Amino acid sequence: MTIDSTLRKALLQPRTIALVGASPDLAKNNSRTQRFLKRFGYNGRVLPINPTRTEILGERAYPDLKSAPGPIDHAFIMVPAAAVPQVIDQCCELHIPVATLFSAGFAELGEEGLARQQAMVARARAAGLRLLGPNCMGLINVHDHMPLTVNAVIEREELVPGPLSLISQSGSMTGSILSRAQARGLGFSKLISVGNECDLGVGELADMLVDDDDTGAILLFLETFRDAGKLAEAARRANALGKPVIAYKLGRSGVGRQVATSHTGAMTGPDEIAGAFFREHGIIRVDTFEGLFETAQLVIGHRPPRGKRVSVVTGTGGAAAMVVDRLGVLGADVVGPAPEVIASLAEKDIQVSDAPLIDIPMGRSEGGRYSAILSALLLSEHTDAVVSVIGSSAQNPQIIVDRVLQVEARNVKPLGVFLAPRADDALVQLQRNGVASFRTPESCADAVNAYLNWRAPGTRVRADAEVHAAAQIARRFELDRLSERDAGTLFHALGVRIADYRVVSKASDAVDLMGPCAVKLLSPDILHKTDAGMVALNVAREAIAARAQGMLDEAKARFPEARIEGVLVQQMERGLAEMIVGFRRDPEVGPVVILGMGGIAAELTKSITVRIAPVTLDTAREMIGDVRELGLLRGFRNLPKGDLEALAAAIRAVSLLALIDTRIVTDAEINPLIVKEDGRGVVAVDGLVVFET
Amino acid sequence: MTIDSTLRKALLQPRTIALVGASPDLAKNNSRTQRFLKRFGYNGRVLPINPTRTEILGERAYPDLKSAPGPIDHAFIMVPAAAVPQVIDQCCELHIPVATLFSAGFAELGEEGLARQQAMVARARAAGLRLLGPNCMGLINVHDHMPLTVNAVIEREELVPGPLSLISQSGSMTGSILSRAQARGLGFSKLISVGNECDLGVGELADMLVDDDDTGAILLFLETFRDAGKLAEAARRANALGKPVIAYKLGRSGVGRQVATSHTGAMTGPDEIAGAFFREHGIIRVDTFEGLFETAQLVIGHRPPRGKRVSVVTGTGGAAAMVVDRLGVLGADVVGPAPEVIASLAEKDIQVSDAPLIDIPMGRSEGGRYSAILSALLLSEHTDAVVSVIGSSAQNPQIIVDRVLQVEARNVKPLGVFLAPRADDALVQLQRNGVASFRTPESCADAVNAYLNWRAPGTRVRADAEVHAAAQIARRFELDRLSERDAGTLFHALGVRIADYRVVSKASDAVDLMGPCAVKLLSPDILHKTDAGMVALNVAREAIAARAQGMLDEAKARFPEARIEGVLVQQMERGLAEMIVGFRRDPEVGPVVILGMGGIAAELTKSITVRIAPVTLDTAREMIGDVRELGLLRGFRNLPKGDLEALAAAIRAVSLLALIDTRIVTDAEINPLIVKEDGRGVVAVDGLVVFET
Repeated sequence: MTIDSTLRKALLQPRTIALVGASPDLAKNNSRTQRFLKRFGYNGRVLPINPTRTEILGERAYPDLKSAPGPIDHAFIMVPAAAVPQVIDQCCELHIPVATLFSAGFAELGEEGLARQQAMVARARAAGLRLLGPNCMGLINVHDHMPLTVNAVIEREELVPGPLSLISQSGSMTGSILSRAQARGLGFSKLISVGNECDLGVGELADMLVDDDDTGAILLFLETFRDAGKLAEAARRANALGKPVIAYKLGRSGVGRQVATSHTGAMTGPDEIAGAFFREHGIIRVDTFEGLFETAQLVIGHRPPRGKRVSVVTGTGGAAAMVVDRLGVLGADVVGPAPEVIASLAEKDIQVSDAPLIDIPMGRSEGGRYSAILSALLLSEHTDAVVSVIGSSAQNPQIIVDRVLQVEARNVKPLGVFLAPRADDALVQLQRNGVASFRTPESCADAVNAYLNWRAPGTRVRADAEVHAAAQIARRFELDRLSERDAGTLFHALGVRIADYRVVSKASDAVDLMGPCAVKLLSPDILHKTDAGMVALNVAREAIAARAQGMLDEAKARFPEARIEGVLVQQMERGLAEMIVGFRRDPEVGPVVILGMGGIAAELTKSITVRIAPVTLDTAREMIGDVRELGLLRGFRNLPKGDLEALAAAIRAVSLLALIDTRIVTDAEINPLIVKEDGRGVVAVDGLVVFET
Repeated sequence: MTIDSTLRKALLQPRTIALVGASPDLAKNNSRTQRFLKRFGYNGRVLPINPTRTEILGERAYPDLKSAPGPIDHAFIMVPAAAVPQVIDQCCELHIPVATLFSAGFAELGEEGLARQQAMVARARAAGLRLLGPNCMGLINVHDHMPLTVNAVIEREELVPGPLSLISQSGSMTGSILSRAQARGLGFSKLISVGNECDLGVGELADMLVDDDDTGAILLFLETFRDAGKLAEAARRANALGKPVIAYKLGRSGVGRQVATSHTGAMTGPDEIAGAFFREHGIIRVDTFEGLFETAQLVIGHRPPRGKRVSVVTGTGGAAAMVVDRLGVLGADVVGPAPEVIASLAEKDIQVSDAPLIDIPMGRSEGGRYSAILSALLLSEHTDAVVSVIGSSAQNPQIIVDRVLQVEARNVKPLGVFLAPRADDALVQLQRNGVASFRTPESCADAVNAYLNWRAPGTRVRADAEVHAAAQIARRFELDRLSERDAGTLFHALGVRIADYRVVSKASDAVDLMGPCAVKLLSPDILHKTDAGMVALNVAREAIAARAQGMLDEAKARFPEARIEGVLVQQMERGLAEMIVGFRRDPEVGPVVILGMGGIAAELTKSITVRIAPVTLDTAREMIGDVRELGLLRGFRNLPKGDLEALAAAIRAVSLLALIDTRIVTDAEINPLIVKEDGRGVVAVDGLVVFET
């Protein structure tokens, strides 16, 4: 679904709002919305609904929605969960287009609440009523003076119009972000608390904001993904239109995921999956709280960078070193000025060295020199972003003008300013003049690094002949969980080389493989074959027939019920490294492909790299670059080089499982995939494919 | 040297200050100190020194120090570097006890400046004059109204007395930290900018502050270590007296170290060495800028914790999840309440679960419930620190009182409060009432984690019989760089088992070793023996004699000048892992012991762990715990266990090289040290020892 203009108006610019459960008691949350609407000058009709009152805070009150004068555009529901169904019924009867539910007591409480929520959604869907929440704080349309929210923070805040729009899965964070950003000179357009997202979700709402002319950047505060597909589409549209989407997401640590899970009632996978999602769809991800809004001004009007290079200019070494040090930790390339920049500055009698920190001890009157250096860097092809760090003199507004605001080229590429002392006025002065300003070295480095890691959305990979062939093969399998032989057949169809094998059913079957082999029983009913003694490795050629017959005999005796399809005799393979290439349909973000070290190293290091599937060859190469241990296979210390191109091709092939449409693959894995010497390819030794049941 | 009471008074409470190079020009830095002294009510005599003026800013000026009315306690020197020597001469002649040099143009400029600085120090030392700086901003004694500084920040700041004292290697950071901390309700006692530390250094000044009654916590902003030994002693004394020392140090990244190096003219080693230093001497290390001062209130009055456990309480899930998530990333143990806490709260009719985040959705009037939970946790034995996260309502001062300030147990263990919205007043309100308050989730988690990682200074290890024996052996070696045989002898004396070997000088020498051996030429003049073909591995027993003779013959032919001591025939050893155990006398912090994976893994992973040497067995065990790959040797997945106790003993043994006093070991390494199965010990296969020349 997308949000049409009728719904958008009802959501953001309703002419009549019903406040169901409004209260005159100023100590109660339920009194806030009405007060806020009045205080901030909402110019539509407000209808308090309360069966025990005829007047609330100076407005006539009505016992229920049906008694109130229609048409109502938007119902804001604050009654207890038990009373919600009858309110929803009335909304449906009255053809109210949208209801926002502050009411809690739904999916966030577990199974019973979830059932209540699902029943409510079913009722609303049938009648064409859209729902925001439940368990949300509401939404604010700043430009139209429409604070339809219970958030306590705006008791003490003004509403400053500006280009930021925020969608938050945490209701209270809308107020926290609003108050912090406004104090820094940044204004908002829309702030939307989505609560449980029973109907309207982050993706659909982001999609709406892509087309909102008052929104210059879309900020997301996320605990989970509930409609990742829609969010992906919205982010891609935003990117095409040059509107940045910036996300802060919880769940970097195990305990963080545990808390997010209990808080939202949703499951959250490893953080690498979220990272892959953001990267794939061109979403800028920040890692610090204030970075979420501080990054906006840095990136608005800019496109993803070509490299990861940043230049840092300062007149105060210590403070700038904090930013440089952290940029280094984050992996950004802090670069000194290019020779042509040094030369062009020398022509203006400004001497700078090529050191990574451009540190120019200076007096107050030398703003011209400083701004000339900033200009030269902003215009240089050899850097992707510029940071200016100002020390003690930052409290002087004229310094800010002289050093930064008079720089004509300041919008050519992202420019961020970190101020070392307390300098609240200067922070605001910079933001109001369109220059990103940062309060801490950590958020400055975080934002700049987030920009440097920003990439345009990945190319969509389409099904090719191999995928069509694999799809035909997949259709033929009867089981949901394929044997290693059948899994191998599917991987082979996608272009992965499989270790050579023969299936034998008696000792006299000829096995024409070279060298030692693995001998494994083929049976869909015996799952842990190694533990059951049904796998033998490194069996010499002359011993294969006897070992296979022995295994068949033993299996028949020990597992009389099991279906036995024969014995797989497989060429033993050796190489330079053993990898795992995995595929998983993540419950939140959908298909992903995973690369990690195989064998025991996998369980020990847990270092994996993930991308949204399917991937291009280029993305597969990038994944190989992510795995530190694979550095060994790049000709390190005269060690033999591995066939990393073949590995990239295999990663891409596995990722193509996402496109098979005859049956849905939920999990798959090649483990191990053996990487041989350069030119000799890779070979899959064992594999697993599980279809959706 | 330590700072005696005369020097301390001259430094911090001078009765007469001479401002050498004072200027009446308000636009110049040189005018600031005089204005500041006046503005903040300094009650001693101020003598401006300037050869071209008879009066400056209302004070009588003198052409030079000798013409000014003595005695002068403290000379503050602001003249250009070229004019400094004659000023120093006059200070010496007049027996002025201390001079602070704002003047730049010394060691920070390179060789020539360093020579100038060294000459100045020699002159001063001879006359008993102590120097602070050069290239420093001066110092501020807040309680005594003595702002002897050129820092521009205090043009716009008041000076608020409080318990923090700061020593900073970056001059401008003193102003930045002062302004930020004061705006947060934190006051200062002393702020000292040390510049190039040509004489008075961080360590000696910290030592002085340990005894300063107005100093409750010592903060350090560091770019390098110039007097690590004195700093270590000061930190240990501070710890004994219960006065926390908190450090922020640049150089976490390569580019950060490069910048610190160019900025200070000092060399800086890998950050792990700095970390080892802080840990060993009981210094709390923070990683965020604001964490440096925000941590003070958290730790003042507390001792190092027993565990790494922290409890987090909130009424606002999203904001608290930010803190929990980051604590998890940093490695803290976020723990739910213990059963007895749950039970005791249940008695008060307060229900909490054992989830790691204690999330209690609540209304405004329920502060009593909140504070009861905080109390119970602060009194619980099952957690080491408590964090409270307050959301939208943080802007209400009464909420702060109800939820936090009325908690009686709030000083029992560290309690930190993070406020999600902008709530500047509440931040100040908390700090003024002795509760640590945090402006960002990142600095909150950083500070709490820094506290949880704080350990009491390590036990000093003393020389034992093995060290004395090794010292006698070390004395006997003639070379500065020992052969593998001699290095082995030294390691063996310290208690490390060496792979069994024989030295042969002709084919007929009997070799009674079992199994295959390594055969290596012994010569101090052939350094890269493997490249020279002078190492053969896995030589079968029957081939050893011929291989040794062949090597001797070839060496004599190819390297006729080389001294040849024979051929080392060494038992080949196998085990479960190969480690490197290294020792190094770091130019900044002194002896350190290093543990890392051996072989190619070392160069690839670069994951090392470092401690100040010598170490106890317990510390050696801790180091083993730091190396992720050694998890394999703990009985993982039914793999054989490694002899990690023997590894710990070997690490300790190598670290004892620090105590050998007959000759100074600068570098040493066992590579590889083979770790065998549990009970079978470790064995050194190759080693290196380098003595100071």
